[in-house]
Amino acid sequence: MQALKGKMVIGQSGGPTAVINQSLVGAVLAARGQENITGILGARHGIQGIMDENFIDLTTQSAEQLEQVAGTPAAALGSVRLKPGKEECERVFEVFKKQGVRYFFYIGGNDSAETAHIIAEMAIEANYDFRTVHIPKTIDNDLRVTDHCPGFASAARFVALAFMGDDRDNRALSGIKINVVMGRHAGFLTAASALARQNEGDGPHLIYLPERVFDVASFKQDVRDAVAKYGRCVVAASEGIADADGNPIASTGERDSHGNIQLSGTGALGDCLSAHVKDAFSGEKVRVRADTFGYLQRSYPTIISEIDAGEARRVGEFAVNHAVTGTENGSVAIRRLSSDPYESECFITPLSTVAREATEMKGEYINEAGNDVTQAWIDYVAPLVGDLPKMGNL
Amino acid sequence: MQALKGKMVIGQSGGPTAVINQSLVGAVLAARGQENITGILGARHGIQGIMDENFIDLTTQSAEQLEQVAGTPAAALGSVRLKPGKEECERVFEVFKKQGVRYFFYIGGNDSAETAHIIAEMAIEANYDFRTVHIPKTIDNDLRVTDHCPGFASAARFVALAFMGDDRDNRALSGIKINVVMGRHAGFLTAASALARQNEGDGPHLIYLPERVFDVASFKQDVRDAVAKYGRCVVAASEGIADADGNPIASTGERDSHGNIQLSGTGALGDCLSAHVKDAFSGEKVRVRADTFGYLQRSYPTIISEIDAGEARRVGEFAVNHAVTGTENGSVAIRRLSSDPYESECFITPLSTVAREATEMKGEYINEAGNDVTQAWIDYVAPLVGDLPKMGNL
Repeated sequence: MQALKGKMVIGQSGGPTAVINQSLVGAVLAARGQENITGILGARHGIQGIMDENFIDLTTQSAEQLEQVAGTPAAALGSVRLKPGKEECERVFEVFKKQGVRYFFYIGGNDSAETAHIIAEMAIEANYDFRTVHIPKTIDNDLRVTDHCPGFASAARFVALAFMGDDRDNRALSGIKINVVMGRHAGFLTAASALARQNEGDGPHLIYLPERVFDVASFKQDVRDAVAKYGRCVVAASEGIADADGNPIASTGERDSHGNIQLSGTGALGDCLSAHVKDAFSGEKVRVRADTFGYLQRSYPTIISEIDAGEARRVGEFAVNHAVTGTENGSVAIRRLSSDPYESECFITPLSTVAREATEMKGEYINEAGNDVTQAWIDYVAPLVGDLPKMGNL
Repeated sequence: MQALKGKMVIGQSGGPTAVINQSLVGAVLAARGQENITGILGARHGIQGIMDENFIDLTTQSAEQLEQVAGTPAAALGSVRLKPGKEECERVFEVFKKQGVRYFFYIGGNDSAETAHIIAEMAIEANYDFRTVHIPKTIDNDLRVTDHCPGFASAARFVALAFMGDDRDNRALSGIKINVVMGRHAGFLTAASALARQNEGDGPHLIYLPERVFDVASFKQDVRDAVAKYGRCVVAASEGIADADGNPIASTGERDSHGNIQLSGTGALGDCLSAHVKDAFSGEKVRVRADTFGYLQRSYPTIISEIDAGEARRVGEFAVNHAVTGTENGSVAIRRLSSDPYESECFITPLSTVAREATEMKGEYINEAGNDVTQAWIDYVAPLVGDLPKMGNL
């Protein structure tokens, strides 16, 4: 099969990350070296920008400008949460044909992989010769097949550093501190809080993940036990924790355009857990505070994991090189070759293996009581996040 | 007057900062060079540790260990919120006499300066020859006399970086984003969000400070106007904003041991402002999210302002050197000599000029509409926070 010749479109989709622009720049710079790619169009706000023919020409920016973009958090092209139906896909092909587009790269999570998959399937139906590669990103780390997802490790680094500092703060003015971390169905990011522990007694002392049923009575007892042991307690709770019936512990009831209940951008869960703790200590004077880390986890500049930035760049480059030289659509995945020293490589997996369904934390990463992580989890996540500063003690 | 000879006690008090341990280490290392200081006692949890004779001997730690402590956020000795009465002060003198303490250094804000002041007054009454120096710290930047307070610039840097990233996130997935920043009576920290602006259209688009009455109707109109202009809106709101009668816009009603209403450690204000915005757009589909930055602002590691760290160290050293060579009690203050290049020096001001009452933002720093800051504010704050990364654009 002869390599396709034509323009490429690249878009960013879903919740941004601190390194999603590394993938964009990696793909763009790789494309500039491919003679079969005759033009590079950046779609503003993902699939929406394609339908609106709202493109940025990415063939001419200086490397210096692109490097500045690569180092900037959040989707420089703009993002979108839109699952296209038949009608939207037809419009996409109309635009692709009109513009002579033969390559499509979509940077996103499992919803975005599904979009790429739908478009790829429709291209076959429409007999449109076309190559699409999904470029993975998500702070949730919940894509199937890949060892981990670009974007996760930088968010995990933000969370680990936040808990390191907050644990010192809680130690200075003792009390019960609850920190709510992003993660709807997967607890990876919440579990990264465990990296904050450097010495016996360091928090977080309890970690609650959406992979396990959250039982209010057990939670209250856990906190009382931790306070009895440490004189204080720092809790990491995933925003997605739910009861035995699968109902979120706190929710505003709002839904986003993918039909997901809104969990982020509100302090409801933290305040709800605070109320439970106050109830557990009813009559006793305790200082209870809750913070919800919110969007800073995915957008905070300057705390990027170097490995994450490098891999995010690499998956973008790999996608373009594969699209031109390979013969199949797919999604880029990461295989870990070694944890010490850390080494990885990219490979291609079929879109269907990544699209739609997400994954969650392995059982071996969660302790039996369901309120902490295991050493296996630390061994997995620590190399991705990189060296953390050493906290001093008197 | 002959220099006093005896031990020193040093304590940390009030809300910790990211550089309060620099002041501790600065004071300890300076004291080690003073032959009139015969021993260095660190009081655990401030004045409480003195009453309990709960001390850490700070004469023997290695410089390496102390430097690691200096780089660690939050009070390494532990902190406290306690305003001592006559009885507590008598106990403090009992301990000081017993231990041969002639120097007392208290690192804290205006409440801590008041504690130092009360103890200093009681020493005169008790005819106890004794020197006390207050070492300033507060992320609120609300101490009188000094140009600014150690601890503020690092918290301001956290806030500026947070808004830089969050504004990119909001640009990628447009909507209305409200970020609640610490600051009960003074808006300095909230106002630092303005440093996130690098180009026309960058957020925050609206800044609400406790120095101005918060009017819900004006807020709704401001947000609508910003959305009309930018297609989105990022809001910085101080946790202390209050209505014309001085009532906080949202409050749990809880009070801390200084009698202050609890504002931090809850998402109540963010959720309340979100509800007002949704109301302002009733019937229209808008994406509204609120984050409360919470305790991360004062404890996050790795984002320290270099000038802040240096000055926090310097006020600690200066306090000790003044106590030994000077003849009066007092509080260390900072005088700005130049903004470009930035230069400052320390001086001593009487405890009474810093104790009890705090200050707030000058009128010239706030715009006429009361929903933004002025260039004069930027000129004041930018040199303290230091260089910020440049965000890339396509």
